[in-house]
Amino acid sequence: MSTTSTWTVVGMTCGHCVASVTEELEALDGVDRVDVDLASGAVQITSTEPLDRAAVEAAVAEAGYALS
Amino acid sequence: MSTTSTWTVVGMTCGHCVASVTEELEALDGVDRVDVDLASGAVQITSTEPLDRAAVEAAVAEAGYALS
Repeated sequence: MSTTSTWTVVGMTCGHCVASVTEELEALDGVDRVDVDLASGAVQITSTEPLDRAAVEAAVAEAGYALS
Repeated sequence: MSTTSTWTVVGMTCGHCVASVTEELEALDGVDRVDVDLASGAVQITSTEPLDRAAVEAAVAEAGYALS
């Protein structure tokens, strides 16, 4: 099974920010792919199971940013 | 001998940018200390000898930014 969810991350300002968020999200259990759009803050995550908002929020916070 | 010079770097948007610029400048020969102010782009460098603009410019470019 594969599921895709879209989230909005606020506070990213450059490619380093994108890399940090991507790295943290890719480390989550079941995550196969992370696509971040810096301009809009949209983050699309493909995972083997639906993701828990709390887990995504924690990973984004670990990178230093926040979900909107 | 110790000399301090101040430069302006454009394009930095976050702490990661500051870290990249600091790291590249600290790697220059004779550089003892680098202080970067993200908001203004001001970069103060303390070095054992006066720095060549071309060397500073190359290090800043290596990090992905530019001198104003």
